[in-house]
Amino acid sequence: MDNKQLMLQVKQWIEEAGQYIKDELKKVVKVEEKTNRSDLVTNVDKGTEAFLVKKINEAYPDDLIIGEEGTGRDVSSTKGRIWIIDPIDGTLNFVKQQENFCVMVGIFEDGNPLLGFIYDVMKNEFVYGGPSTGVYLNETVINAPEDLSLADGLMGCNAKMYTDNYEHSREIASAAIGVRMLGCAGLDFLNVIRGKQNGYISNLAPWDFAAGTVLSQALGLVCRQFPDLDYNILGERQYFIVATPQTFSDIQKFF
Amino acid sequence: MDNKQLMLQVKQWIEEAGQYIKDELKKVVKVEEKTNRSDLVTNVDKGTEAFLVKKINEAYPDDLIIGEEGTGRDVSSTKGRIWIIDPIDGTLNFVKQQENFCVMVGIFEDGNPLLGFIYDVMKNEFVYGGPSTGVYLNETVINAPEDLSLADGLMGCNAKMYTDNYEHSREIASAAIGVRMLGCAGLDFLNVIRGKQNGYISNLAPWDFAAGTVLSQALGLVCRQFPDLDYNILGERQYFIVATPQTFSDIQKFF
Repeated sequence: MDNKQLMLQVKQWIEEAGQYIKDELKKVVKVEEKTNRSDLVTNVDKGTEAFLVKKINEAYPDDLIIGEEGTGRDVSSTKGRIWIIDPIDGTLNFVKQQENFCVMVGIFEDGNPLLGFIYDVMKNEFVYGGPSTGVYLNETVINAPEDLSLADGLMGCNAKMYTDNYEHSREIASAAIGVRMLGCAGLDFLNVIRGKQNGYISNLAPWDFAAGTVLSQALGLVCRQFPDLDYNILGERQYFIVATPQTFSDIQKFF
Repeated sequence: MDNKQLMLQVKQWIEEAGQYIKDELKKVVKVEEKTNRSDLVTNVDKGTEAFLVKKINEAYPDDLIIGEEGTGRDVSSTKGRIWIIDPIDGTLNFVKQQENFCVMVGIFEDGNPLLGFIYDVMKNEFVYGGPSTGVYLNETVINAPEDLSLADGLMGCNAKMYTDNYEHSREIASAAIGVRMLGCAGLDFLNVIRGKQNGYISNLAPWDFAAGTVLSQALGLVCRQFPDLDYNILGERQYFIVATPQTFSDIQKFF
C-alpha cells in the first residue's frame, strides 16, 4: 500500500469516527476532569480513540500508537511507524459548545512526518495529506498559504503564555494585526494552513501538534519548539510555534 | 405591519445583503484603514450599509438610522424608531479569513429594544427576533440559555482589556473555565445567546452591541455597560458586558 492509499484508508476511518462523535452528541456525554477543571475527558474522547486504535491495530499490528487518552504512552524510540492520536482536540469546546473541536491523527516514520489528518467534524472541514501526497481540503488539493509577515496577519496564542508574556508571547501576539484564542490547537493549525492566521504559539503535547506539524511542514510552514528548537514527538508537553516563514523570522527578532 | 411582519421583512433584506457579501468575496475586496491598522473598512462594508440604508429609507422614511460606516451619526434623541447597523462586524476576520464575521441590525423604539438580527453569513447561522416575537435561530424558536455560573462557562474577552486587566477583566476571564478571543462581537453574542459561552466583555460602539443586546435581553441575559451601568445606544464606544444572570452576579463580586 502506498502513501496515497494509506491516506485514503485513514481518511475513511476518521470520517467514521466523526460520524460516531455526531451520533454520541445526540446522547448524554459523560464528562470527567483530568489534571484540572479545564482539562476534561469524555466517554466520546475515549470511544473515538478506542475506535481508531482498533482500526490501526487490525490493519498494521506492528505499528506503534501514542494516544491522548492513554494508548501506548511508553513509546521510547522513533523507529518504525508511529501514529499519534488526539481523538477530540478541544474537549472543552466539545463539551460547552458541541462544535469547534477536531479529530487529529499524525503519522511519523522513523521520526519523519508521513501523513497528517485534522477533521473539524461539525464544520465538515477535513485537511489531510503529507509531503509525498500533497495536502487536501475535503477533495481539493491546497497549496502553501501566503507567506504573511507577523504584522500582516492574525496570531493565535495560548491564554496562559499570553498572560505571563512567556518568552515575549504577548508582545509577539500584539505585534500581529490581532490575537485570537480558540481553545483548540487543531483549529489554529487549520487557520495557519489555510492562510487565515500567520501563526500560533501554545503549550502542546505531541498529540496536539503531530497532525498539524505534518500538514504544515508539507506546505512549507515552520514548526518548532518555541522559540526555536526541534520539536519532540516523544516528549512531554512543550512550548510550540507554527508560523509562516516570514512570521517566524519576524518573531526571532524578539530574542 | 406588526413586529413579526417587520422581523420577516428585515430578515429578508439581511439575507439579500448576505448574498451580496458572498458574491463580493469572489472579487477583489478593497481594504482601507480607519483609525489604526487593525480598524479596517472595505468596499463591501460600505456597499452592505448602503444596501440596508436604502431598504430602510424606502420602506420607513421617518425612521432614524445609525450605521458604522457613516450613516446618520448625528441622531441625538432616542425618540421614535432607530435602526443601528453594523454591515460587517469583524471586518478584520472578513479580510483575513473570509469567514467569522456577521451582519448586525438592532432596532430600538423610544429607546426600548424592538428587534435584533445577527447573521453569520458564511456559516449560515441567523439569529433574529425580539421581546415581542421570540428569538429564532434560522427557522426555529430558541429559548433562554442555561444560567451558567462564571466558573462553569467560557468567557469572551477583548484582548486589550484582558492585557491591561481593565476593571479586573483578566481576573474575571481567568475565573471562567476558559477565555476565548474571536475578533467579532457578533460571534460572541451568538455564543452567549446559544449557551456556548457564559459571557463576553469588550469595548463596543452601539453598532457592535445593538443587535446582540435586543436578542440577549429578550432571552433574559444581562447587558450592561461594564461593570454595571446602563448602556447608551447614542453614546460613543463603551465598555460592555453580556452575561448570564448568574455569571453577571459572580462578576459583581470582583468590585
